[in-house]
Amino acid sequence: MTTLAIDGKRVLADLNTLRSMGAYKTGVHKPSLSEPHMQSLQWLVAKLPDADLSGEIDGIGNVVGLSKRKGAKLLAGSHLESQNYAGWLDGPLGVVYALEAARVINKQFPDRAVEVAAWFDEEGHFGNFLGSRSFVGGVSEADIDASIDRTNGETLRAALKRQGLAGKPRVTVEPGRYRGFIEAHIEQGDWLEANKLSIGVVTSIVGIWQFLVTFTGEQNHAGTTRMAIRKDAGVAAARLCVAIAEEFPKAAGERTVWTTGRITLDPGAPSIIPGKAEVLFQIRDADQATLERMAATLTKLVADATAKGPCPGVVQILRKSTPARMDEGFRKALAAAAGPSHTEIPSGAGHDAQILSTVMPAGMMFVPSIGGISHHWTENTADADIVRGAEVFVNWAAKLLE
Amino acid sequence: MTTLAIDGKRVLADLNTLRSMGAYKTGVHKPSLSEPHMQSLQWLVAKLPDADLSGEIDGIGNVVGLSKRKGAKLLAGSHLESQNYAGWLDGPLGVVYALEAARVINKQFPDRAVEVAAWFDEEGHFGNFLGSRSFVGGVSEADIDASIDRTNGETLRAALKRQGLAGKPRVTVEPGRYRGFIEAHIEQGDWLEANKLSIGVVTSIVGIWQFLVTFTGEQNHAGTTRMAIRKDAGVAAARLCVAIAEEFPKAAGERTVWTTGRITLDPGAPSIIPGKAEVLFQIRDADQATLERMAATLTKLVADATAKGPCPGVVQILRKSTPARMDEGFRKALAAAAGPSHTEIPSGAGHDAQILSTVMPAGMMFVPSIGGISHHWTENTADADIVRGAEVFVNWAAKLLE
Repeated sequence: MTTLAIDGKRVLADLNTLRSMGAYKTGVHKPSLSEPHMQSLQWLVAKLPDADLSGEIDGIGNVVGLSKRKGAKLLAGSHLESQNYAGWLDGPLGVVYALEAARVINKQFPDRAVEVAAWFDEEGHFGNFLGSRSFVGGVSEADIDASIDRTNGETLRAALKRQGLAGKPRVTVEPGRYRGFIEAHIEQGDWLEANKLSIGVVTSIVGIWQFLVTFTGEQNHAGTTRMAIRKDAGVAAARLCVAIAEEFPKAAGERTVWTTGRITLDPGAPSIIPGKAEVLFQIRDADQATLERMAATLTKLVADATAKGPCPGVVQILRKSTPARMDEGFRKALAAAAGPSHTEIPSGAGHDAQILSTVMPAGMMFVPSIGGISHHWTENTADADIVRGAEVFVNWAAKLLE
Repeated sequence: MTTLAIDGKRVLADLNTLRSMGAYKTGVHKPSLSEPHMQSLQWLVAKLPDADLSGEIDGIGNVVGLSKRKGAKLLAGSHLESQNYAGWLDGPLGVVYALEAARVINKQFPDRAVEVAAWFDEEGHFGNFLGSRSFVGGVSEADIDASIDRTNGETLRAALKRQGLAGKPRVTVEPGRYRGFIEAHIEQGDWLEANKLSIGVVTSIVGIWQFLVTFTGEQNHAGTTRMAIRKDAGVAAARLCVAIAEEFPKAAGERTVWTTGRITLDPGAPSIIPGKAEVLFQIRDADQATLERMAATLTKLVADATAKGPCPGVVQILRKSTPARMDEGFRKALAAAAGPSHTEIPSGAGHDAQILSTVMPAGMMFVPSIGGISHHWTENTADADIVRGAEVFVNWAAKLLE
């Protein structure tokens, strides 16, 4: 098969149109169900006929453009909302690539179809992959009842009503309809850029395990309590963080990452010895066995601290997602479409593809991020890399439909 | 001179009357210029004539009961407000002891007088020793303008007005009037209790030096940023806390204490590498040279961390008070009044005596704290220790007036 041509100018123009909705400096502020988000979804609905697709915004804010054709079908897409005051490509890049694939392929091949999806709230304003999980049947009405905007406290029910979506049906997957799902995204790291490569073939999407470690000491007066009799929970927390920094590299995989995002000393006053300390800690890896090994290391470090005293520690698991392997055949097809300028790479961030991978084969492709920056308005990718990525993505989709 | 007899039942009854104003469990909630605080000050004003003294609440909430007599005079007292939801003895004990000394001594010796003070806001709801500093001439009208209740944001001006004190004159010290100032207080530590002693002869009141150490890293995505290229300000903060725990004991004096009261990681989110970390740190010691040595140790540890990288640290001094030595003669007189069951001890907490010591000889006496607990409603001292303390205090005052 020869290489399919794409319209690079159209891809860049579409992305810039989406950037103009909710523009913030060179990025966007487009929270889920905000006006600029709704505008973006309506823009996509209006574009679907160009690819011989039709669809509307469903009862949870998903758009899935469906084809009336028979024959092989592939689902492709990403999301259109953004983090608060963040970048223009995180999400829209994957939706516009999917749209371009549908426009090119559906026109040239009447016996096959790319269908295009914009999944609701991948960025988690209201929850955890609510749109793609709803599509695969994993979101109950009670889950929707319980969802609240983390920024302003608005309930998801109220937000859906505000945008005229309350009571509309939700689109769900038709079993056996698709060969699989593919998604393109900016890397959000600097690996491709550092290695001067244009395409990342994602091997798997990491599992994210989140922990709260709590140390209990004894709150007391910081002036009158002798050092010898203190039980300072803050010191115990600091010692754990340093022990993690020393011991984790010995147990980690090549790409394991771990982060202490927050340390809270209670009561947090200058003249009071902290009686309680909380450490919010996270581990990410694409390999389940590695995640289990790291979690065991954390548990051991806390147990060691407790045994040593004087402040006992308790580990609580807050979140535990399973790593999602990308389909082997999809990865090979992507590598073939990409040519030599690619590398295999795990995804350190979560993506809708991990949800879709639970019901169909799934694949994921990265393009370079300038400086590895994301979730910030300066997030960017060179125009040439955006166009090259679209070309590879469209030809990858075409291969999967052969 | 023979031992003067005191009325132990009267002392306990007075303390329990003061506890009934703003009672909270077995302690009190008596913030500065609250109703129960004003009631307590009015109670003291009404008691002054029993000791041949007179006074009223002045323009900053001080009560100073003055005598019309000629002859040797001694000033004694402490404070009547409490920390929020705290103990019943922190403050009132010293005021009631002073009142008892005045009642006993002023009755028996017409040629001398103990004068009684309740200093405003030793607990720092609005500022830093505002009452005793006002008395020694250290508080300007602009200082009062700038003072705000740390709990509810009310200005001191508004609170004074609310209690009818706005525009009243402030009492200030008459130079040469006093042989000195003495104050009794609960120890707030467990040294007397652990050593089965009834009286602490305070050698000096600690200096308190407070620091904010700020580390600057690079905020980034906790999933996509490789460990090798991270600049995690939180790890730098934890390493400093552990280095302090390891290195400070080597440079510390016997009773130096140090506390990290708060660690703040910015932005404090689970999936973001902290780009900034703040450590709120405090050192207390009774010896100026020791304080300087400890501060230099802190500066060196932060400089070492900066040199090692990757997150530079900056040390900022927030507060720096000078240790206050108690008068040598006053200490000897107290030791003599106390008999064998006493020990010399520094005060790890700040007290009004440190302010008075800048204009006259000052002395301070401790009684045992059960379990070393203070700033909590369970704060307590055995009745027998309270009565014994009153007896020693009154006889100490009598000796200083000989």
